[in-house]
Amino acid sequence: MNHLPKPAAEGLRTRVFQIIFESDTPLAKGFDIALIVAILASVLVVMLESIESLRADYGTLFFWLEWGFTLLFTLELAVRLYCLERPLQYLRSFYGMVDLIAILPTWLALLLPGAQTLVMVRLLRTLRIFRVLRLMEFVGEGRLLIGALKRSSHQIFLFLFTVFMLVSIFASLVYLIEPAEAGFTSIPTAIYWAIVTLTTVGFGDIVPVTPLGQAISVMVMLIGYSIIAVPTGVFSAEVIRSIRADRYSDEACPGCGHDRHEQRAKYCLLCGTWLDEDSPDPRLSEEEQAAWWEEHGGQGNDA
Amino acid sequence: MNHLPKPAAEGLRTRVFQIIFESDTPLAKGFDIALIVAILASVLVVMLESIESLRADYGTLFFWLEWGFTLLFTLELAVRLYCLERPLQYLRSFYGMVDLIAILPTWLALLLPGAQTLVMVRLLRTLRIFRVLRLMEFVGEGRLLIGALKRSSHQIFLFLFTVFMLVSIFASLVYLIEPAEAGFTSIPTAIYWAIVTLTTVGFGDIVPVTPLGQAISVMVMLIGYSIIAVPTGVFSAEVIRSIRADRYSDEACPGCGHDRHEQRAKYCLLCGTWLDEDSPDPRLSEEEQAAWWEEHGGQGNDA
Amino acid sequence: MNHLPKPAAEGLRTRVFQIIFESDTPLAKGFDIALIVAILASVLVVMLESIESLRADYGTLFFWLEWGFTLLFTLELAVRLYCLERPLQYLRSFYGMVDLIAILPTWLALLLPGAQTLVMVRLLRTLRIFRVLRLMEFVGEGRLLIGALKRSSHQIFLFLFTVFMLVSIFASLVYLIEPAEAGFTSIPTAIYWAIVTLTTVGFGDIVPVTPLGQAISVMVMLIGYSIIAVPTGVFSAEVIRSIRADRYSDEACPGCGHDRHEQRAKYCLLCGTWLDEDSPDPRLSEEEQAAWWEEHGGQGNDA
Amino acid sequence: MNHLPKPAAEGLRTRVFQIIFESDTPLAKGFDIALIVAILASVLVVMLESIESLRADYGTLFFWLEWGFTLLFTLELAVRLYCLERPLQYLRSFYGMVDLIAILPTWLALLLPGAQTLVMVRLLRTLRIFRVLRLMEFVGEGRLLIGALKRSSHQIFLFLFTVFMLVSIFASLVYLIEPAEAGFTSIPTAIYWAIVTLTTVGFGDIVPVTPLGQAISVMVMLIGYSIIAVPTGVFSAEVIRSIRADRYSDEACPGCGHDRHEQRAKYCLLCGTWLDEDSPDPRLSEEEQAAWWEEHGGQGNDA
Repeated sequence: MNHLPKPAAEGLRTRVFQIIFESDTPLAKGFDIALIVAILASVLVVMLESIESLRADYGTLFFWLEWGFTLLFTLELAVRLYCLERPLQYLRSFYGMVDLIAILPTWLALLLPGAQTLVMVRLLRTLRIFRVLRLMEFVGEGRLLIGALKRSSHQIFLFLFTVFMLVSIFASLVYLIEPAEAGFTSIPTAIYWAIVTLTTVGFGDIVPVTPLGQAISVMVMLIGYSIIAVPTGVFSAEVIRSIRADRYSDEACPGCGHDRHEQRAKYCLLCGTWLDEDSPDPRLSEEEQAAWWEEHGGQGNDA
Repeated sequence: MNHLPKPAAEGLRTRVFQIIFESDTPLAKGFDIALIVAILASVLVVMLESIESLRADYGTLFFWLEWGFTLLFTLELAVRLYCLERPLQYLRSFYGMVDLIAILPTWLALLLPGAQTLVMVRLLRTLRIFRVLRLMEFVGEGRLLIGALKRSSHQIFLFLFTVFMLVSIFASLVYLIEPAEAGFTSIPTAIYWAIVTLTTVGFGDIVPVTPLGQAISVMVMLIGYSIIAVPTGVFSAEVIRSIRADRYSDEACPGCGHDRHEQRAKYCLLCGTWLDEDSPDPRLSEEEQAAWWEEHGGQGNDA
Repeated sequence: MNHLPKPAAEGLRTRVFQIIFESDTPLAKGFDIALIVAILASVLVVMLESIESLRADYGTLFFWLEWGFTLLFTLELAVRLYCLERPLQYLRSFYGMVDLIAILPTWLALLLPGAQTLVMVRLLRTLRIFRVLRLMEFVGEGRLLIGALKRSSHQIFLFLFTVFMLVSIFASLVYLIEPAEAGFTSIPTAIYWAIVTLTTVGFGDIVPVTPLGQAISVMVMLIGYSIIAVPTGVFSAEVIRSIRADRYSDEACPGCGHDRHEQRAKYCLLCGTWLDEDSPDPRLSEEEQAAWWEEHGGQGNDA
Repeated sequence: MNHLPKPAAEGLRTRVFQIIFESDTPLAKGFDIALIVAILASVLVVMLESIESLRADYGTLFFWLEWGFTLLFTLELAVRLYCLERPLQYLRSFYGMVDLIAILPTWLALLLPGAQTLVMVRLLRTLRIFRVLRLMEFVGEGRLLIGALKRSSHQIFLFLFTVFMLVSIFASLVYLIEPAEAGFTSIPTAIYWAIVTLTTVGFGDIVPVTPLGQAISVMVMLIGYSIIAVPTGVFSAEVIRSIRADRYSDEACPGCGHDRHEQRAKYCLLCGTWLDEDSPDPRLSEEEQAAWWEEHGGQGNDA
């Protein structure tokens, strides 16, 4: 969906475009790697800044590093916009917005100091790495997965809905059985506990203390342990089907338009039309076959 | 199994029937969505009511909301029964009972005040959502899953039985080894612990403290971690088999013997032979086709 | 491997044999169900007896129930031995030993009072249920699973060995990094912690407290979370292969003895011998084919 | 990649080489087993030595055992080098380095006493077991797995990268929501918690205490519980593809076009056509076979 944006036509801008937006030349690849390093470094700074002791010691360093990265990314965005024909359209695209989100929080903090929540938004910078991965034809690998996920989404939605029903029923039961001192103070809390249990996370912050509560917990655990097989099975089957679908040709039958033939199919499975483009239909008469060979380059057996 | 019930024959009732029981017209779809929203809202009220602080502040609001939903669902059930030919039969069906369960607890609470346990039953209202999903042909998606589950149920029962045997043996061992202070006060408690461990939930409310007990725990964990592969593998295989069986015919091509044709294939994809046994090959001359029909029972178009 | 033992030849003993050892008649099925109920009840008694408060209140009841079950099972074993031709051979078989183990502890407790450990052995009574499941042709279902497990055992052994190596290396690292106060008092304890973490059980009785220790924990968790795919994938593939292997015929080629042909194979894939027993080899001359049909019942097309 | 090193040519050295480096004779197999036992025993000593109480009681024993194993392994390495043509090249190979690492720590501890960290390096001795497994053709079993892992590595990298992105976003949210007293003192700590939760380990050392934090935890758990299906599905599909690719040929039968023959098939299983392209059909007459050989390069048996 995100087609590469068009460059402005001039010489310098075209060359800059090729470095920044494409990934074919060594210079462009170097730029990509430098960008990934800068993004990861800037995210690392955001994370380290949240550690109390480090902030006390290196607060000023973090401050200047953050501004350094912000200026760098601002400059990069400016260059990107400079070498495009329709810069506004780019800003409205997904990657344009991510570029804006990567620098806005720091600039806004000048106007609205103390907006700590905004600082977190800077972590979305990691999203920019997907752009580079896409250029490196990495994301294409993920398309198979996303296709399989999409095709199994209906079944997985039903699965999650059923899980939620089981969870709320078991949670209510445990809420009725267990004393509030054990932590089951309300149904939402009991649902939190039931999901902690069903997903086999098991924090242990809330645990059943009565024998009956433990018996119900055991059922929740066994259900959680077993039904993980359902999404796994569905998704495995979809991935296997996707891989197999690679064996299907994309071309439609010239006779009836049917377009899901296996690669090796020689006859359309619905109308019987000859599909192989490299040889004549064997049902033709010998003269017709000879004529076909003449027309298509003459490697026929009538030579 | 739950076929759509039959409407009473009159005009208004038929129209109401189509809105409430079917899902084809825009009005019927709007009704479905409104119903889902009402069900989810009423369930949310039940859940929020269980939170102490909210009940203190908004108790009266919850009370009236609950009665609002109950009257709404009662009215809905009355209309449902009104537009059916055999209302009593509907009440005995699965969905009829769920409809009753959704309203009974509140009405009964008038007669038997303080029956807090009954309040929980209202959570079963979520079951009503399945009716709408079924109308929306959502549940059909789940049929493949349920079929695969049924066919693997024998193997999964055996699996769970074996797991239970392992669990009770390991639990007894740990019960003998660990001191009661560590929490292993009885075999049932030890079984609870063993299932918490085997399913990799790991609450941590009871943990082994002796080296030998920890060594046995390690075995339980490794078993639990490994054998999850068994139901997953069985179920995956069944789903894959279901998907494949849906698509491929078992019969071989009479021309070349190739035997992996899709169900709908009419021509062999390798040799072009006509595969459909219920009609003559359209490539035959008219006389030959007529002869074919004569031979196969004469429902031909030459009649 | 456990073939049904042979009955002694007389009338009464044969009839008793059919009830106890087989599962075809209504009486035999009733016996099976009664046996399962008795086994489960006796195991339940052993479990409940281990609960302090119940033992105080119902100790005497449990005592007599236990003796009741023991006498019942002793009687059953006596009848089993009575109606067999070679009773001693049965006692040396797997099911014979399980039968003995089910009653010995209680009898031995008469001689050696206070042998509480022996009491646990009674839990092995559940093993006797497998006999009934086998009769009900339930265990046959499990043979596919066991076959798949056996064929993937080499790979799963390698997997577990690699896991153990990773675990001991990470455990040693964490042992060096974390202070002993956090619970990492020795390498074996650290290995216990690493397995708790890798299998995603996560009791929380020992947790890393230093940032470096937490970073290593994160690696252990991600490894544990990801590599579960390995045994699952291997086992799934084996189950799918097993199911597919059902498509293979058991009969060997009369020409070369090769014995893994698909069900539909008409020619041996190694020596080209004709395999279909219901029609003559089409490579024979017409006379030979006619002779074949004559010999095999004459439904030939020469009629 | 690790080809067997070449022995020096003389008699005694060749015989020693066969015992130490190969695994065909009974003597060589005995040596392998003795080596595995010695390695496991030496690793066990390292582990037990780390237990405070055992070190107090048996410190001297451990000390001498350690030196015994070190001298044994040093002697073994010396013999290995003695019977090789190019001992230095072996020392630079993977197994040579592992051999050195197995003995160096103890020798270095003579020079640099108190280097406790080095002691851990001795645990890498377990790596030496892989050599023996390789000889026993055990590792070959793992090659299928490693191949499947490699082919799915791109997708699993993308998966882990996406997981990391989700984790850091959710961790930042929880860091903002939860009070520092609950343990969420910094973003790295929150990421540690998020991975503990997503991988379903769930230590419980840090748990959310606010309703909003618990709601986000629930999302993290459900994501972690569901997306495990992704690597499992991808890897299962790869293993299945590997197994199948091992067995079936890609080429279609020239007679009937059937294209799912096992690699070793010489005759088409449906029409009996000769499939082997490297020799003539044995059903041809001798002259025809001779003609075939003439045409295809003449390595025939008529020469």
